[in-house]
Amino acid sequence: MNFKEELEKKTGEVETILAEYLPKQEGFQGKVLEAMGYAVSAGGKRLRPLLMRESADLFGETAEGLPCFMAALEFIHTYSLIHDDLPALDNDDYRRGRKTTHVVYGEDIAVIAGDGLLNYAYETALRAFEKAVTIEDYQRTERALKILGRKAGVYGMVGGQCADLLAEKPETEVTEEMLLYIHRNKTAALIQAAMMIGAVLAGADDKAVELMERCAENIGIAFQIQDDILDVTSSLEVLGKPTGSDEKNHKLTYVTMHGLEESKRQVAALSEEAVGILKGFSHRNAFLETLVEQLIYREK
Amino acid sequence: MNFKEELEKKTGEVETILAEYLPKQEGFQGKVLEAMGYAVSAGGKRLRPLLMRESADLFGETAEGLPCFMAALEFIHTYSLIHDDLPALDNDDYRRGRKTTHVVYGEDIAVIAGDGLLNYAYETALRAFEKAVTIEDYQRTERALKILGRKAGVYGMVGGQCADLLAEKPETEVTEEMLLYIHRNKTAALIQAAMMIGAVLAGADDKAVELMERCAENIGIAFQIQDDILDVTSSLEVLGKPTGSDEKNHKLTYVTMHGLEESKRQVAALSEEAVGILKGFSHRNAFLETLVEQLIYREK
Repeated sequence: MNFKEELEKKTGEVETILAEYLPKQEGFQGKVLEAMGYAVSAGGKRLRPLLMRESADLFGETAEGLPCFMAALEFIHTYSLIHDDLPALDNDDYRRGRKTTHVVYGEDIAVIAGDGLLNYAYETALRAFEKAVTIEDYQRTERALKILGRKAGVYGMVGGQCADLLAEKPETEVTEEMLLYIHRNKTAALIQAAMMIGAVLAGADDKAVELMERCAENIGIAFQIQDDILDVTSSLEVLGKPTGSDEKNHKLTYVTMHGLEESKRQVAALSEEAVGILKGFSHRNAFLETLVEQLIYREK
Repeated sequence: MNFKEELEKKTGEVETILAEYLPKQEGFQGKVLEAMGYAVSAGGKRLRPLLMRESADLFGETAEGLPCFMAALEFIHTYSLIHDDLPALDNDDYRRGRKTTHVVYGEDIAVIAGDGLLNYAYETALRAFEKAVTIEDYQRTERALKILGRKAGVYGMVGGQCADLLAEKPETEVTEEMLLYIHRNKTAALIQAAMMIGAVLAGADDKAVELMERCAENIGIAFQIQDDILDVTSSLEVLGKPTGSDEKNHKLTYVTMHGLEESKRQVAALSEEAVGILKGFSHRNAFLETLVEQLIYREK
């Protein structure tokens, strides 16, 4: 199997897990369950669950509670998209070519569908305890839950969203420090959760989990800078959305701050360090290394 | 100390716990933290944490993780109010005489403040694991977390919110079954969480926890019916809001369905069963019994 075939197979496995953990759409709350299912089934790269599983594989041990956390993390990512798309936030009517949740179900149901999905993420992750037998199993699941909580909340993704919303207001002077804070939290935090939780559940030690945290931070930031680079260099045809929009909108990005060449150098440095960390472990995961490189050096 | 003094003292203790567990308002995410703190500090009866502590006392054992769960449950209650008040839902500009969160901080920050608070509730509850030593401690905390998740989510409060939103749409025919579903989930579910978690953390057995679940369901439903009764019988002066509004809005309630006398009988029956359950345990908690009665037979 080449990389592309392997990626398709593994993505399919994630889809199966998501379908298994999504609640049935029944009862008086059927509408909110339907909206939750609509948002989750909109597709996407399923990057976070993929990275979680591959990070667990890197440390070898069978991690029983892994599928619960894979589903939970994708539910958290999805709830954040539902709320991000709301008229009061980014006001997006389409995502991945489909109408967004509030366009189909109304704003009121979209708000509580996001809430329901965030809450259900924790309900799903908590099911990992069903596999716990020893006190060590309990402690691993506890640790994974705490990472999930921290990286998804005000010291992670929600914190990044807050700074991102403020950065768009005309009265805010965006500094490089703020820009990095946004990338680190809005984008990198859930990638960190993915790779750290995979490692924790597979029995990685503290030092290894810290290395995974740094690796994932680099991936997240490089991913964002690459996004800004593509906005300048890519054509409408390749990207599927108008290019040069950041410059037109006077949006401050790493590229507008440091120029194209320096940005490309930065992406290369971050990527090299990230893959270097992965290569430094005793067990190797070639698929994960390729996935990270493809993710950063993408053309759209 | 009479009941009123004891209630004030205990409510003060809850306020201290909430203040202790709320995160500091700093960093680039300072604004969302400020909005979360604003909503939590708006006050209220702190009924859910109070009921949790008193339910734990009913079973005697010191429950170490209790303050974490008391704070977590109040955070969940508060996030639901922030989102309920949004223009797309109930569109309320004032709550308890103060401007609502979206009026002060904007709709965008209010949405993510609700998200941040829900997520932070789980972060806070997870801190209860810090007190766990034996595998039994871990299992109690696990059980309490699962009750919190279930009662707060699509099979609890969020499910009730969904049905409540649908019930307000002109095309929905509201049945008695649907009305009871809304009371049971939108109101009773978090009261159930409070009383069940208190019992679980204090070492109550399965049968006792089930009894607390039924007791709390009765309290929640009786509370709601009493609300509908007060809308008809109370004066503007006592209630502080216009009365007779349900009839004017053609809102279907237990009172409009069954009349005032039958509704009062129902409140008495539910209340008697609830207090009967509390009196049936070997240890008695007179404060809790009075709290439940005062809660149901309130005049505003």
